[in-house]
Amino acid sequence: MGRDITLFSGPWSATSLDDLALKTKEWGYQGLELCCWNDHFEVQRSLAEADYCQQTLDLLARHELSISVLSNHRVGQAICDPIDQRHRRIVPDYVWGDGQPEGVQQRAGEEMAATFRAAQRLGASVVSGFTGSPIWSYVAGYPGPTPEVVAGGLREFADRLNPLLDICAECEVKFACEIHPGQVAFDLYSAEQALDALDGREEFGFTFDPSHFLWQGVDPVEFLRKFPNRIFHVHIKDACLTLNGRSSLLNSYFPHGDSRRGWDFRAPGRGGIDWEAIIRALNEIGYEGPLSVEFKDAFMDLDSGAQEACQFVRRLDFEPARKTKEDAFRHA
Amino acid sequence: MGRDITLFSGPWSATSLDDLALKTKEWGYQGLELCCWNDHFEVQRSLAEADYCQQTLDLLARHELSISVLSNHRVGQAICDPIDQRHRRIVPDYVWGDGQPEGVQQRAGEEMAATFRAAQRLGASVVSGFTGSPIWSYVAGYPGPTPEVVAGGLREFADRLNPLLDICAECEVKFACEIHPGQVAFDLYSAEQALDALDGREEFGFTFDPSHFLWQGVDPVEFLRKFPNRIFHVHIKDACLTLNGRSSLLNSYFPHGDSRRGWDFRAPGRGGIDWEAIIRALNEIGYEGPLSVEFKDAFMDLDSGAQEACQFVRRLDFEPARKTKEDAFRHA
Amino acid sequence: MGRDITLFSGPWSATSLDDLALKTKEWGYQGLELCCWNDHFEVQRSLAEADYCQQTLDLLARHELSISVLSNHRVGQAICDPIDQRHRRIVPDYVWGDGQPEGVQQRAGEEMAATFRAAQRLGASVVSGFTGSPIWSYVAGYPGPTPEVVAGGLREFADRLNPLLDICAECEVKFACEIHPGQVAFDLYSAEQALDALDGREEFGFTFDPSHFLWQGVDPVEFLRKFPNRIFHVHIKDACLTLNGRSSLLNSYFPHGDSRRGWDFRAPGRGGIDWEAIIRALNEIGYEGPLSVEFKDAFMDLDSGAQEACQFVRRLDFEPARKTKEDAFRHA
Amino acid sequence: MGRDITLFSGPWSATSLDDLALKTKEWGYQGLELCCWNDHFEVQRSLAEADYCQQTLDLLARHELSISVLSNHRVGQAICDPIDQRHRRIVPDYVWGDGQPEGVQQRAGEEMAATFRAAQRLGASVVSGFTGSPIWSYVAGYPGPTPEVVAGGLREFADRLNPLLDICAECEVKFACEIHPGQVAFDLYSAEQALDALDGREEFGFTFDPSHFLWQGVDPVEFLRKFPNRIFHVHIKDACLTLNGRSSLLNSYFPHGDSRRGWDFRAPGRGGIDWEAIIRALNEIGYEGPLSVEFKDAFMDLDSGAQEACQFVRRLDFEPARKTKEDAFRHA
Amino acid sequence: MGRDITLFSGPWSATSLDDLALKTKEWGYQGLELCCWNDHFEVQRSLAEADYCQQTLDLLARHELSISVLSNHRVGQAICDPIDQRHRRIVPDYVWGDGQPEGVQQRAGEEMAATFRAAQRLGASVVSGFTGSPIWSYVAGYPGPTPEVVAGGLREFADRLNPLLDICAECEVKFACEIHPGQVAFDLYSAEQALDALDGREEFGFTFDPSHFLWQGVDPVEFLRKFPNRIFHVHIKDACLTLNGRSSLLNSYFPHGDSRRGWDFRAPGRGGIDWEAIIRALNEIGYEGPLSVEFKDAFMDLDSGAQEACQFVRRLDFEPARKTKEDAFRHA
Amino acid sequence: MGRDITLFSGPWSATSLDDLALKTKEWGYQGLELCCWNDHFEVQRSLAEADYCQQTLDLLARHELSISVLSNHRVGQAICDPIDQRHRRIVPDYVWGDGQPEGVQQRAGEEMAATFRAAQRLGASVVSGFTGSPIWSYVAGYPGPTPEVVAGGLREFADRLNPLLDICAECEVKFACEIHPGQVAFDLYSAEQALDALDGREEFGFTFDPSHFLWQGVDPVEFLRKFPNRIFHVHIKDACLTLNGRSSLLNSYFPHGDSRRGWDFRAPGRGGIDWEAIIRALNEIGYEGPLSVEFKDAFMDLDSGAQEACQFVRRLDFEPARKTKEDAFRHA
Repeated sequence: MGRDITLFSGPWSATSLDDLALKTKEWGYQGLELCCWNDHFEVQRSLAEADYCQQTLDLLARHELSISVLSNHRVGQAICDPIDQRHRRIVPDYVWGDGQPEGVQQRAGEEMAATFRAAQRLGASVVSGFTGSPIWSYVAGYPGPTPEVVAGGLREFADRLNPLLDICAECEVKFACEIHPGQVAFDLYSAEQALDALDGREEFGFTFDPSHFLWQGVDPVEFLRKFPNRIFHVHIKDACLTLNGRSSLLNSYFPHGDSRRGWDFRAPGRGGIDWEAIIRALNEIGYEGPLSVEFKDAFMDLDSGAQEACQFVRRLDFEPARKTKEDAFRHA
Repeated sequence: MGRDITLFSGPWSATSLDDLALKTKEWGYQGLELCCWNDHFEVQRSLAEADYCQQTLDLLARHELSISVLSNHRVGQAICDPIDQRHRRIVPDYVWGDGQPEGVQQRAGEEMAATFRAAQRLGASVVSGFTGSPIWSYVAGYPGPTPEVVAGGLREFADRLNPLLDICAECEVKFACEIHPGQVAFDLYSAEQALDALDGREEFGFTFDPSHFLWQGVDPVEFLRKFPNRIFHVHIKDACLTLNGRSSLLNSYFPHGDSRRGWDFRAPGRGGIDWEAIIRALNEIGYEGPLSVEFKDAFMDLDSGAQEACQFVRRLDFEPARKTKEDAFRHA
Repeated sequence: MGRDITLFSGPWSATSLDDLALKTKEWGYQGLELCCWNDHFEVQRSLAEADYCQQTLDLLARHELSISVLSNHRVGQAICDPIDQRHRRIVPDYVWGDGQPEGVQQRAGEEMAATFRAAQRLGASVVSGFTGSPIWSYVAGYPGPTPEVVAGGLREFADRLNPLLDICAECEVKFACEIHPGQVAFDLYSAEQALDALDGREEFGFTFDPSHFLWQGVDPVEFLRKFPNRIFHVHIKDACLTLNGRSSLLNSYFPHGDSRRGWDFRAPGRGGIDWEAIIRALNEIGYEGPLSVEFKDAFMDLDSGAQEACQFVRRLDFEPARKTKEDAFRHA
Repeated sequence: MGRDITLFSGPWSATSLDDLALKTKEWGYQGLELCCWNDHFEVQRSLAEADYCQQTLDLLARHELSISVLSNHRVGQAICDPIDQRHRRIVPDYVWGDGQPEGVQQRAGEEMAATFRAAQRLGASVVSGFTGSPIWSYVAGYPGPTPEVVAGGLREFADRLNPLLDICAECEVKFACEIHPGQVAFDLYSAEQALDALDGREEFGFTFDPSHFLWQGVDPVEFLRKFPNRIFHVHIKDACLTLNGRSSLLNSYFPHGDSRRGWDFRAPGRGGIDWEAIIRALNEIGYEGPLSVEFKDAFMDLDSGAQEACQFVRRLDFEPARKTKEDAFRHA
Repeated sequence: MGRDITLFSGPWSATSLDDLALKTKEWGYQGLELCCWNDHFEVQRSLAEADYCQQTLDLLARHELSISVLSNHRVGQAICDPIDQRHRRIVPDYVWGDGQPEGVQQRAGEEMAATFRAAQRLGASVVSGFTGSPIWSYVAGYPGPTPEVVAGGLREFADRLNPLLDICAECEVKFACEIHPGQVAFDLYSAEQALDALDGREEFGFTFDPSHFLWQGVDPVEFLRKFPNRIFHVHIKDACLTLNGRSSLLNSYFPHGDSRRGWDFRAPGRGGIDWEAIIRALNEIGYEGPLSVEFKDAFMDLDSGAQEACQFVRRLDFEPARKTKEDAFRHA
Repeated sequence: MGRDITLFSGPWSATSLDDLALKTKEWGYQGLELCCWNDHFEVQRSLAEADYCQQTLDLLARHELSISVLSNHRVGQAICDPIDQRHRRIVPDYVWGDGQPEGVQQRAGEEMAATFRAAQRLGASVVSGFTGSPIWSYVAGYPGPTPEVVAGGLREFADRLNPLLDICAECEVKFACEIHPGQVAFDLYSAEQALDALDGREEFGFTFDPSHFLWQGVDPVEFLRKFPNRIFHVHIKDACLTLNGRSSLLNSYFPHGDSRRGWDFRAPGRGGIDWEAIIRALNEIGYEGPLSVEFKDAFMDLDSGAQEACQFVRRLDFEPARKTKEDAFRHA
């Protein structure tokens, strides 16, 4: 299909954007999904310096790379989360400030708003990211939340998001919230509830990454069919169940790359995701955005893995049929 | 086998102990696992009133029921948890007090210590319960905790538990911590880590309830074989996966009894647990404690369900072979 | 639950109603689903003879049996089917007449209307049955039908059914069309299309028999949730896949009872149906009608099988929980 | 292996034979399976015009393409089928004539006979096609046919086929009847019955297309081993089950390409067929005919799909071992 | 069905026949399958003492128990096996003699012949047993045997069996060789080869015990259908796969009852055998012999297990349908 | 990864080493695993002729091929096996000698010792091979061995191996015993027992070939994790289960390449082995030896198969991640 294959820049935090762009092109990609938490793209500079965005665009253009999506997951996490020490590592110092929770949340929201503005300057129509959640810790634990507590959490989510989405509207940018554990929306029904909490406003949709559905037992195709108009962005990332009776889906406390986990991420095509079903469902719902490789395989070399992933996506994304009425009646 | 079949009293909070004991006997049970969060058993009265425990024992004796395990999950949850409003509903008012977190945790610990003393007076050798966890919210969310954060959480757990376990030792009672989401120990490897954090001290072991393993993908038999000497108590509760592509193992925010969940508890024998394998593993490790029915099936009537469950456990708990060397060489 | 367990009288065509009622009661049933294609119940006599219905009701009352559903599958098949010689065996001679197709269809419709009137006289609120289909032969064959042909078939179905459903309305009886191969509605989506063709009129709903879903790969629970208000009747019949690489789901041309088939019907509980999931879904949607055993197991004795089936359904149909808001917050 | 990879010409009805031959060669194929229902090959012209066949052969030769199989499924369908309006679209006008059923059947048979003669002129040793069936509508519906009705249907099939097979014998051509829903022979045992009805005459065998076996639950390998000498032709076409609880194997009334179906065809290698097992079974039975790609994937572009399919078949069709007695004793 | 449920006496070697018969009757059995390797039945005494058989029959009659099958597996093992020290424990001293292999084999054959004669005296029409195998050690090992070596082994088997089967014929007794690892016939095709080696002589058939098929991956139903006239006896014994990634189907060197095995025997109904399919296949082939419980579950008490097993078989062995032509056409 | 891909020379017994080396290089391999049972490498000449080893090394060097593993499975089999006629075909005449069992075993051991010495001369650090087993025939047969018999067999194994392993130590060569049916160590626990019998001496480890685990139901990954320091060599060979109800895992007596078997070997990537999991586990345990293709697919051409296999292994053996502490905390 004519979809762009892009690369999520996050894992190459130690590589300069120029070097990364060179490689990205060589590996066969058509674009970059720039992440805002390293020097690949700095939100504040983009607003403060008149030519920063254009310089970034020029750099990409030299490598014949496009940019249609800007990502800011890390700072987004601090918008609705109860803040703790872990957030210090994932937000800029100026967002962390004195670390007082409400202030951190406030500044994280402002940074996300700034990201929307930056996206507009870049000509990127979508910002992908996280929001954090006031009620994540209640999800699978004990005691479970009452319906009132859940409703309250969703309300807080909406209250914090709505002003930011107003800025989206202003900037003609959409916010693609990644369906992901740790967020308000982490599976199909919670995505529906998040959307409802926002009264289905059109600036809000989803970054679809099937690797998060695998271990939760959700069929990614059902998700795509449930929200055909809300798939604003797609991450290509695989995952694999590694259950052996002792490992668990909650993974004890093991980090990615520990073989005692019950699941882990994998390079695209080397895990358990049914990509064939997904690409067909993406064709069915008419998704026309990029297919963005988020390379995350704790066991595999980043550079050679990213190259292989691009080839994988190219084979996967076949040319769909031009449907006509007659097609349905062809010889069986 | 000669194991006692007992009933976990918690769900009959609206029934007096006398009425519940009458039913329990009629349904075929041999004992009760008394829960301390309703008037079935009141910890403070048991310590304050000289004859409270004996009266309780007399009452049970009138119905030919034994008691070998005392349960105090609710207050235990507040020992290590970061306290929030949800805890107010599950601890006594005198534990909640002014609701200042550290104070609640402190008093929850004291109440658990009191429970150990009460168990001793009742002649119950095991207290089953929860501990809460300082790091539960980090388990499946984002950002994941660093190894240092995990280690810190385990240290806090040990620091809070050790004084309580000293009282266990003093009272000659064991603490059977239920492996359960929301606790420090929720799967096989986290149970191992919890045990290690406590240097494997002998007063600490587990309440084994296979319903929590099912959806995590852990084989209950592997758990039993991993900790053959730490299975201090067994809950008989079933569960069923109800994945249909849209539901998820994290259950969105749906409470038990909502059919959109990806799993839910079931009456024993009406779910997906392989009880045959479990009873054989319990025989193998020489577990001699009670088989305690925790009836929790949001779709089934409590009383008739409890009666059916007792019959189910009786069929399940077959008379094991008396093993002799010769047995291994019998005709194939 | 308080649901009646009833027996579908069809297979005992060689047994008088009095003898069958005696057995039915002895086997433990609470009612009979009378079939109109043998002398258990004769539609024309019921309309012609003033006391026929009362005599039937008296006979049943003597055996303490109720009747809430009257069945007329055979004649119903001739309403929409293209008529061929096979229909001669399943309709009364006066319906077959000269065998001219349109006349047979016409008279079959009239007989079904008469059945509705008879049901009213009996105090049975539901008539279960078939309708036949003008387009069944196109379903899996070649060449497939154009959308226009399908639409035409559905229109014909509606044209033939609507006048009959008017009589239903008049008689305050509902028509429970069995979802079954050979009918317009044979799976979930075709049931939806049939309902749409009738503009969802309230006299029309379904007889749910999960044995027909098994080999088609449809989840019976999905069906119940799709049409919670249209489940007018339930047949308890099991089925088993017997695929071995050579047998097929289309069963070559083998009749029931030939072991080369790829599936066949089974006595309840001896096949592959997940009854536990079904009874829970019936509780969920609030179905309050009878559970009617249609005994059809070509390998098993009819009488002893019917007795076993009644016991099976009694165990299956557990007492559901009385749901309260509080239930959702009980100890996990 | 040295087997030819050929392309079934049917789906390119809008492409001239010359253009199609050019592409076919470019995509890597070695031959074409010409279909007689578009202007790729016209049966009547081939008999009427002295040099038509030679011109066709010359055209193919210019593109270095062979032809070993001629296909005439559409007109074949009308030989044994009860004729209805759907057939009008799949037979030539001169076969349809006045549309009187018996006449249509008669002329369809004559056209098939003409196809055999045309094949002889082309040097194609096999004609692949359908026959239709007098009893297809009885296969999964209600009421089921009596054994006598089945026997009658098979007899009619034989009566209509035998004269045509006499012409096969005369022309030294074989008829490869495709095992396919809608035909007399649609699964393993019905294929056996069809063969028996024809007394196993040697001109009659099968076109093997595993995509039709998948949803019926038949193992294609069992089919190949059952009829090792009757596999006259092989279609390479994949299929995929898309069951999700709501979809069904009978596909409601949905045409190919509707995602609510329970199965659909797929490009080779993108579905659920175990091609590795099939190619090994084809090697085992010594099948030496072409592997003919019938490209039918309602979701995929025809031209790029056909190219990919050719590459897929080339990888699949590995060089088999030259078996010697010694081989069986090599080092394990 | 009217089939007798009998008990294989072997495991009660420490119980006198009188005591065992008393229990057997109490547990609900109708007969005993007497084993000849303990004092339940002594072959030599039965031939030497005029009234031994009658006394045995009288004893059984007192307990209302029948005997239709006599078992002699242990001595049978020594007929074709290469003899080693393990055989000393399973044959009587007078068969072992000086332990010279050929002599042991010779005497084992004579003892089996004597068993046939004893069976005749008892009125038992079937002797169940083993034969050992000259080529068992070659089955899964290295180097594999050449076809000549296999043929030689089968020939030796036939040479040793044929004279014994002549005595069967003389005594009007049949030999039901148990399909079992360690024998010439251990799976479906080796059973076929064994039968072929004996030219299919009618005195030779099989003891069918599905527990041996489970771990080999053979479908017991396929076996029954392959040899419908050779099922002379049926053992009811269950088995369970206990694969966990570390255990193996070859079970390392662990004896029964070691939980590290990859499979083990189980009480009937507590393992992985599909008994429903088996009982239907036994009905289908018209097997009319006893269903004989061979109780072998290393984890379960023998006596209570045997009692439960009898109840299990009674539920399993349902009354089959009396088939009539009409049955095939009953309402679907 | 930087691992060498090598080819096991055994199957090309009819090809001279020079010709094989030429092909091996062309197919893309980096080395050869020389087998000692054909003229590719002759142990006795290597010891007797001063320059034989150097000539072999020169020949390989001309083709840019390395050698790090020398294989001698066939003669190894005779070390611990009870000798029978099958061994005559797999050992050199000078080892067979007069065929007296103890002498054959003695000389087989000496030949293996000579192989160790030859490996040292070649600079190969590993010898791969078999040992045979004194108790293989007892593994799955009847009667099972007593624990004493097993212990005796393991002792005999150790007694025969220890002197040979002394020579390994002397030569600074390791012995990689292949886990394989027919050996003392054939699954995970028997490998553990073999290692224990040798007191875990460091010269002894394993050749890991996952194809032998597949049909035994052992997870190859569990094996690698159990013995991370004992994986001295790896064979790349695939296998496929071909169970169809009639075939069995013990394969009747059918040789490789007979389609009635229940499993057979396959070319790498064309069977059922989960290679992705294996390569990750090999990375995890730090295996740095060669990946050696043992091509054994009775249905596939040897030369083209070997070429395909090399390409398969190259794709499989991806570049692993360079793990750093930070990796565990990257964006999820």
